[in-house]
Amino acid sequence: MDSVQGEYIVVKAKDNGVHVIGLTRGQDTKFHHTEKLDKGEVLIAQFTDHTSAVKVRGKAVILTKYGTIQTDD
Amino acid sequence: MDSVQGEYIVVKAKDNGVHVIGLTRGQDTKFHHTEKLDKGEVLIAQFTDHTSAVKVRGKAVILTKYGTIQTDD
Amino acid sequence: MDSVQGEYIVVKAKDNGVHVIGLTRGQDTKFHHTEKLDKGEVLIAQFTDHTSAVKVRGKAVILTKYGTIQTDD
Amino acid sequence: MDSVQGEYIVVKAKDNGVHVIGLTRGQDTKFHHTEKLDKGEVLIAQFTDHTSAVKVRGKAVILTKYGTIQTDD
Amino acid sequence: MDSVQGEYIVVKAKDNGVHVIGLTRGQDTKFHHTEKLDKGEVLIAQFTDHTSAVKVRGKAVILTKYGTIQTDD
Amino acid sequence: MDSVQGEYIVVKAKDNGVHVIGLTRGQDTKFHHTEKLDKGEVLIAQFTDHTSAVKVRGKAVILTKYGTIQTDD
Amino acid sequence: MDSVQGEYIVVKAKDNGVHVIGLTRGQDTKFHHTEKLDKGEVLIAQFTDHTSAVKVRGKAVILTKYGTIQTDD
Amino acid sequence: MDSVQGEYIVVKAKDNGVHVIGLTRGQDTKFHHTEKLDKGEVLIAQFTDHTSAVKVRGKAVILTKYGTIQTDD
Amino acid sequence: MDSVQGEYIVVKAKDNGVHVIGLTRGQDTKFHHTEKLDKGEVLIAQFTDHTSAVKVRGKAVILTKYGTIQTDD
Amino acid sequence: MDSVQGEYIVVKAKDNGVHVIGLTRGQDTKFHHTEKLDKGEVLIAQFTDHTSAVKVRGKAVILTKYGTIQTDD
Amino acid sequence: MDSVQGEYIVVKAKDNGVHVIGLTRGQDTKFHHTEKLDKGEVLIAQFTDHTSAVKVRGKAVILTKYGTIQTDD
Amino acid sequence: MDSVQGEYIVVKAKDNGVHVIGLTRGQDTKFHHTEKLDKGEVLIAQFTDHTSAVKVRGKAVILTKYGTIQTDD
Repeated sequence: MDSVQGEYIVVKAKDNGVHVIGLTRGQDTKFHHTEKLDKGEVLIAQFTDHTSAVKVRGKAVILTKYGTIQTDD
Repeated sequence: MDSVQGEYIVVKAKDNGVHVIGLTRGQDTKFHHTEKLDKGEVLIAQFTDHTSAVKVRGKAVILTKYGTIQTDD
Repeated sequence: MDSVQGEYIVVKAKDNGVHVIGLTRGQDTKFHHTEKLDKGEVLIAQFTDHTSAVKVRGKAVILTKYGTIQTDD
Repeated sequence: MDSVQGEYIVVKAKDNGVHVIGLTRGQDTKFHHTEKLDKGEVLIAQFTDHTSAVKVRGKAVILTKYGTIQTDD
Repeated sequence: MDSVQGEYIVVKAKDNGVHVIGLTRGQDTKFHHTEKLDKGEVLIAQFTDHTSAVKVRGKAVILTKYGTIQTDD
Repeated sequence: MDSVQGEYIVVKAKDNGVHVIGLTRGQDTKFHHTEKLDKGEVLIAQFTDHTSAVKVRGKAVILTKYGTIQTDD
Repeated sequence: MDSVQGEYIVVKAKDNGVHVIGLTRGQDTKFHHTEKLDKGEVLIAQFTDHTSAVKVRGKAVILTKYGTIQTDD
Repeated sequence: MDSVQGEYIVVKAKDNGVHVIGLTRGQDTKFHHTEKLDKGEVLIAQFTDHTSAVKVRGKAVILTKYGTIQTDD
Repeated sequence: MDSVQGEYIVVKAKDNGVHVIGLTRGQDTKFHHTEKLDKGEVLIAQFTDHTSAVKVRGKAVILTKYGTIQTDD
Repeated sequence: MDSVQGEYIVVKAKDNGVHVIGLTRGQDTKFHHTEKLDKGEVLIAQFTDHTSAVKVRGKAVILTKYGTIQTDD
Repeated sequence: MDSVQGEYIVVKAKDNGVHVIGLTRGQDTKFHHTEKLDKGEVLIAQFTDHTSAVKVRGKAVILTKYGTIQTDD
Repeated sequence: MDSVQGEYIVVKAKDNGVHVIGLTRGQDTKFHHTEKLDKGEVLIAQFTDHTSAVKVRGKAVILTKYGTIQTDD
């Protein structure tokens, strides 16, 4: 099992109430988990057998292999 | 299963109503999921066993392994 | 299955009516899908078990691993 | 078994009461372990078959493969 | 199946009537497909289980892993 | 068995009484070993089938693949 | 089957009547195919299960992984 | 068996009586071997199926993949 | 079968009558094929299951992974 | 068998009577071979299925993948 | 069979009567083939299942992965 | 069999009577072959299933992956 090798991203909340939402892998694409972050909290999250996409809502900094991106709202 | 290793792209909406549309892998190529992003929202999405192409509609920044590209409409 | 690891290209339409046409892999080489892009739309598409060539018609920017190429018509 | 090869991150507490929270891999995403760090303590932690995401709460420095990030609260 | 990993080349027609001709892999080497490109059209094509050589006729730019080459006629 | 290939870290005690604590891999995360270091002693330790996290308490220098970090207390 | 991964070379004819000749892999080494190129035509050809050597006759430019070489006659 | 590929470290004693102590891999972590080095002696030692950690006591220089570290006592 | 991945060399004749001689792999080392090149002709040849050495006689340029070498006679 | 791929080190004696001592891999760590080098002699030695550590005594230069180290006595 | 992937060296004779001698792999190490090169001739030779060492006698240039070396006699 | 992929070293004799001595792999470490080189002769030798160490006696230059080393006597 290579699942421990999945790519990961880093999300840091710049404000309260940032949502990091996991979308399901497979035939249906739906929200399966929402992690709420308060200001200053950081989430480091891998793609997994159940998560093939991540949506970020709210003021946050996201670190990816292509660089850093700021959401703004 | 290596599906957790699929390439990913990053889409950041610069306006409300950006559509990130997954197209099916396999014999038929059709839309199977549309994720709508509001201004400032970010989607990080892998290619999967079900998605071999992604179409972006609306004002967005897209990060790929070949660099960053701006849609404009 | 390694199909999620296929190379991808990025096509951005610079005008309405850009055609991104998938050609079949295998003994016969024919069109199996045409994705139409309007101005500013972006398609990120992998080679797959069914697509071994892609033809682009209309005013577009194409990002590949060898660099960026502009069609012109 | 390749589990010893999982990616790791480094968390250093800049204040007492930093929480490093492991979130479960798999269908359900919930907290399965919370490690509390006092000021100056360092935790080096891998992704594992049971942990696919890590949440950090409190004043800390986090070292990842994309660089160093400071939480602030 | 690793066929999705085949090397690809990029051909951009600089004039109407460019021919991109696939030659068969295997004991016999013959033409099995000819794709005609008009001015400004671009073809991105992999080597496949059926194509081990590609011949380009007409005014075109070709991008390969060894660099860019201009046909001239 | 690839266990000899596990990543390692280096901990050097800058004071007496530094604790390097191994946390268990698997469903439960608990302390399974504490190695005490006196001033100037160095421990080079791999992640293993039994250790997926390491906690360092006390004044120490830690060398990791992301660089060197100083605990301070 | 990894045959799609074979190395390739690029031959551009600088004059009419360039011959690109495939030599057989295996116990006997003989000509098995001759592709004739007219001025400006380009051939991109892989080594295959049937071709382990290529001979070029006539005025041409050849791109290989060791650089570019000009025949001259 | 890949055990010959284990990572190694280099320890050079700067004084008599340097101890290089191998700690056991597996459920229990205990000392299984102590190699004593006199001034100027050098030990080059791999991680093995039996050793997943090494402790160095006494005045020594240690070469690791993260650089060189001096113990001091 | 990985034979298509064998290393190749490039030989360009600077004079008529250059000999590129394949020597047999295996217990006996003997000539099994001689390819004669006239001035300006180029041969691109892989090591194969039957050829583990190549001898070049006559005025030629040889491109190898260690650089370019000129025979002279 | 990959044993031919084991890492190697290089030891050059700067004086007569340098000892290069192989220590056994496995549960017990003991001396299994001592190679004596006189001034100017060089030993190039791999880690093997039987040797997981090497101890050098006497005036020597040691080349490792982390650089060159001088013993001194 | 990976034998086509063996490392190769390049030997160019700077004088008549250069000997390139293959030594047998395996329990016994003896000469199994001597290839004589005249001035200007070049031999490109792989290590094989039968040859694990090569000895060069006479005035020659040898290209290896560690650089170029001149014999002199 | 990967034995053709073993690392190799290069030894050039700077004087007559240089000895390149192969030491046996396995439980016992003894001399199994001595190759004598006269001034200017070069030996390119791999580690093999039978040789895990090489000792060089006499005035020689040795090329290894860590650089070049001169014996002196």
